[in-house]
Amino acid sequence: MEALNGIKDLSYALDTFYFLITGALVMWMAAGFAMLEAGLVRAKNTAEILTKNVVLFAIACIMYMVVGYNIMYGEGSGIIPGISFMLGADNDPAEVLAQGMDGWYDGSYYSGMSDFFFQMVFVATAMSIVSGAVAERMKLWSFMAFAVVMTGFIYPVQGYWKWGGGFLDANGFLDFAGSGVVHLCGATAALAGVLLLGARKGKYTADGKVNAIPGANLPLATIGTFILWLGWFGFNGGSELVLSNVGEANAVALVFVNTNMAAAGGVVAAIITARLLFGKADLTMALNGALAGLVSITAEPLTPTPGLATLVGAIGGVLVVFSIITLDKMKIDDPVGAISVHGVVGIWGLLAVLLSNGDATIGAQLLGIVVIFVWTFVASLIVWGILKAVMGIRVSEEEEYEGVDIGECGLEAYPEFTGSKGSGI
Amino acid sequence: MEALNGIKDLSYALDTFYFLITGALVMWMAAGFAMLEAGLVRAKNTAEILTKNVVLFAIACIMYMVVGYNIMYGEGSGIIPGISFMLGADNDPAEVLAQGMDGWYDGSYYSGMSDFFFQMVFVATAMSIVSGAVAERMKLWSFMAFAVVMTGFIYPVQGYWKWGGGFLDANGFLDFAGSGVVHLCGATAALAGVLLLGARKGKYTADGKVNAIPGANLPLATIGTFILWLGWFGFNGGSELVLSNVGEANAVALVFVNTNMAAAGGVVAAIITARLLFGKADLTMALNGALAGLVSITAEPLTPTPGLATLVGAIGGVLVVFSIITLDKMKIDDPVGAISVHGVVGIWGLLAVLLSNGDATIGAQLLGIVVIFVWTFVASLIVWGILKAVMGIRVSEEEEYEGVDIGECGLEAYPEFTGSKGSGI
Amino acid sequence: MEALNGIKDLSYALDTFYFLITGALVMWMAAGFAMLEAGLVRAKNTAEILTKNVVLFAIACIMYMVVGYNIMYGEGSGIIPGISFMLGADNDPAEVLAQGMDGWYDGSYYSGMSDFFFQMVFVATAMSIVSGAVAERMKLWSFMAFAVVMTGFIYPVQGYWKWGGGFLDANGFLDFAGSGVVHLCGATAALAGVLLLGARKGKYTADGKVNAIPGANLPLATIGTFILWLGWFGFNGGSELVLSNVGEANAVALVFVNTNMAAAGGVVAAIITARLLFGKADLTMALNGALAGLVSITAEPLTPTPGLATLVGAIGGVLVVFSIITLDKMKIDDPVGAISVHGVVGIWGLLAVLLSNGDATIGAQLLGIVVIFVWTFVASLIVWGILKAVMGIRVSEEEEYEGVDIGECGLEAYPEFTGSKGSGI
Repeated sequence: MEALNGIKDLSYALDTFYFLITGALVMWMAAGFAMLEAGLVRAKNTAEILTKNVVLFAIACIMYMVVGYNIMYGEGSGIIPGISFMLGADNDPAEVLAQGMDGWYDGSYYSGMSDFFFQMVFVATAMSIVSGAVAERMKLWSFMAFAVVMTGFIYPVQGYWKWGGGFLDANGFLDFAGSGVVHLCGATAALAGVLLLGARKGKYTADGKVNAIPGANLPLATIGTFILWLGWFGFNGGSELVLSNVGEANAVALVFVNTNMAAAGGVVAAIITARLLFGKADLTMALNGALAGLVSITAEPLTPTPGLATLVGAIGGVLVVFSIITLDKMKIDDPVGAISVHGVVGIWGLLAVLLSNGDATIGAQLLGIVVIFVWTFVASLIVWGILKAVMGIRVSEEEEYEGVDIGECGLEAYPEFTGSKGSGI
Repeated sequence: MEALNGIKDLSYALDTFYFLITGALVMWMAAGFAMLEAGLVRAKNTAEILTKNVVLFAIACIMYMVVGYNIMYGEGSGIIPGISFMLGADNDPAEVLAQGMDGWYDGSYYSGMSDFFFQMVFVATAMSIVSGAVAERMKLWSFMAFAVVMTGFIYPVQGYWKWGGGFLDANGFLDFAGSGVVHLCGATAALAGVLLLGARKGKYTADGKVNAIPGANLPLATIGTFILWLGWFGFNGGSELVLSNVGEANAVALVFVNTNMAAAGGVVAAIITARLLFGKADLTMALNGALAGLVSITAEPLTPTPGLATLVGAIGGVLVVFSIITLDKMKIDDPVGAISVHGVVGIWGLLAVLLSNGDATIGAQLLGIVVIFVWTFVASLIVWGILKAVMGIRVSEEEEYEGVDIGECGLEAYPEFTGSKGSGI
Repeated sequence: MEALNGIKDLSYALDTFYFLITGALVMWMAAGFAMLEAGLVRAKNTAEILTKNVVLFAIACIMYMVVGYNIMYGEGSGIIPGISFMLGADNDPAEVLAQGMDGWYDGSYYSGMSDFFFQMVFVATAMSIVSGAVAERMKLWSFMAFAVVMTGFIYPVQGYWKWGGGFLDANGFLDFAGSGVVHLCGATAALAGVLLLGARKGKYTADGKVNAIPGANLPLATIGTFILWLGWFGFNGGSELVLSNVGEANAVALVFVNTNMAAAGGVVAAIITARLLFGKADLTMALNGALAGLVSITAEPLTPTPGLATLVGAIGGVLVVFSIITLDKMKIDDPVGAISVHGVVGIWGLLAVLLSNGDATIGAQLLGIVVIFVWTFVASLIVWGILKAVMGIRVSEEEEYEGVDIGECGLEAYPEFTGSKGSGI
């Protein structure tokens, strides 16, 4: 009896620790998005995109605590939010230890607070996707207002439909770690914003040609990508939810390997595609290829072999290059390629589940894709539309020309590097 | 019996691993401070602040191994240091396994070497605080000399008073992870240095007005802040010291959540405060808000609810903005705001313990604040004073004008970006 | 019985998790090398070195999965590779639980996939060493081709000789985490490349004097070093391979401490050496000192006391400064000092095993050094030679002058900072 209690204690502690560490890795992805986006915009808009990334993470955590978690996982949750400050006590140790051994293998015994931590950082990921796509011309405070609704309501509702046990889950839609719930959702909200916002000045010439606007700091974009790659081990690896027995430990290990292989496949495929199309080894495509590989495998990192995972990621890496080119031509101006990486490739990831998971059906996967897209797009369009009407969502032409850093933040990201006027002393 | 030994082995291993991983996260904070400070100084002083940060970490580890750990946690320790190279053997496995089961829940069974690792990286954190405040005008080798005394003696003595079981602990002073022992101590040593050192040239105009000196690289400052945020999960999360049963695992999870919520509260409060005061969403205030939130909750991240933790952090976030403005007006020139973030907000954190921990008394908290401040201030002032007399602590006016990078390090941080003379080829 | 199975489950899960987390830290080193190298080259060659670092990591993972792992650890492995996609199933839970308790302490019970993950990221480390030494003048696609052979064949063969149980292991050669197998191997491949490639234009004046070519972004180099330092806790700490009992947990903790102390010793020794030689506190030498300390202790981080580990690292820190100066004079142009840090100091690390490990013999250590060097040098020279003959390995003089970013990648790393022509809008 004493021994069994000791085992329960350790199992509970190990699974909780596993959640906390993988959750910390997902939190770290916030830094990855911030660096990736800061590296891919122009110098004059860098401080503002950094501000958005720091503040959106804070907003996401607070809103998810206040209402989101309850919508997504609360008792009797659903579209109508219960306002709750997530104040519930964690599991009572005596009660936990009183459980029979059988239940320990279904993964329900770990700290509820560690589960909240893990889910909370996922919301921030979804919101981070949005900031990149609307970069360099959206008003900062309108973006913040959208973040409040997105993280407190739009994301949790569709999250409930799948991970909270709602109708998508009941209909057999499969999405292991969120190619749909997180990435497609974020990209769709971004798309709605970009459509209302319009392209950046100078992105298209008078006769409609695409003008490449290069990012100011590619080492930043690169470290951002590496951070995201590392964080994804937490994102996918933690989504197994349990670690503490032989079978689950094997599963988590396979998820780590497949996540890494998909990213590797995405890099190689994207750089070769870029070489064939442009004649050059375009670094930004290699980075987008890595992210595309990661998004591709996120819906199902457990059932493929490592070889298949590499292939799934590689297809994502090819897709993302063509998607970025196509969206550019369609005048959907997305400075960092977020809609392609997380949206287009997110859909590919959801379909790729069919390649290795026998429980997946094409109908259920399509249902999930359509529902997440339609819900997020319509809800986001309404919110962006209201914000546009009430406070405006786009900065003035003059502010856009001068850079949103000065206009929105009152400072410059690199006052000494760009020879601009406000360089301090 | 065999089963019980297996449980002891696993419990010991899990708690040791928990210490090592959280310690590694705290080590990572050294990179955070380095990037934060490098981003907030001018380009011409960047290589030098990086050098200080790398070397101070190394000095802190060596000095703490040689004498500090022994002062703080050694047998019969106290103000008189025993010189010991921390060569003691770790716990004997046979002896550990011979212990009865009861003791396993009080947290004394994990590798002593892992405890040393965790404590060692804390010292470096305290010292990292100092480097930012004295940036852009202090002599590099004087700073190093101070680091030797600070990490080998000043910090460990007050650390002993609280965490080593000294009189502050005996008097009921509560400081979970070091709002006082680490942050206030570091900030106080910095304050003493700044007072002796004086403001940077150009910080104040002839008629006494404050001249803002913008940092050269805000993406660096931002990644530094994210690194610190991530590292803080180790800083506070590891300070629970034990993980291996249901109650402790719940505690660690709550500490992770509260740490995160306080940072989030700090960001939102600081950015709103900055908007109200300056009319702009000042990125540097958002970053300082995050750090202020983290410092606020460090003295007590376990007893508040997540909602209260958010509030404690938010108050820290407001405080830090006013403190930075006030210190600037008082002509205490702190280029990165370290004294405000770690000192003023550290005091707030120690007082905030009273909001949620029934064991805290206002008297004990004030006693701790006064003792840590007076000890560190007086001891630091003496050391800085001796250094000033013996080798000088401030660079020459010419070197300050040219930048300490050339003078102290013989190189430039960004030879090609600032159009300066020494740009290589 | 039920209790014993619970213990087996937990032990397996904990050791697997330990592998995955330390492996993730080693993966993070890829970001460290990328930043270190990007910071130490000139702005015009930055995007290309970033591209190489991202793609080489991907190539390393894929090649190691396809053939490398099988060569190094496969059944009947050896110099003749078995082509296998590493598709084998992981350990069967029922079989694992059926094992008697005794075997649990020899470390054979953890997920095979987690072992693959850990080994895979090591290969990438070896390859990352190469990219720095050949920076600023090697053709990107020739480098990629070399990466394929290096990670799929050259590295795994010598890895098999030691860690796969080959003849170096049988002869008593000791190399705990790879001062030889990883660092000397990588540095030797780099040396072969550099000799065939020649020095950068402008590195030596017409009369043979050495021209220092400063790196463009030292904060990047610094964060790269901190990333490597952090990642090394995984590199050395994970190489103990088992964690789950008192003795092993103590061992892992000691490895963490010694790894950190060696780095600290390296920093202090290098900065003092630089100060004595150049009169300045050269930041790049402090960074190389940290890395040298880490390489020094990698062959034996378990048997030294922390004091001795500090000393071993310090000697590495002195060595690296003299080695960099000497190689420069010998016209072996290594822009980031990789051959010195990983090769020269790697040899020192292998010899330093003799200081603390009674099982080490000078003969076996020398045998290992010679075998790894000769094998890697000859094999690499052949591959570089073939590449030189077939596709060329050096960019054109014009491309080198303009920067390989434009030529190879078709973009610039910092289009707005350097006043160059292609600065976008």
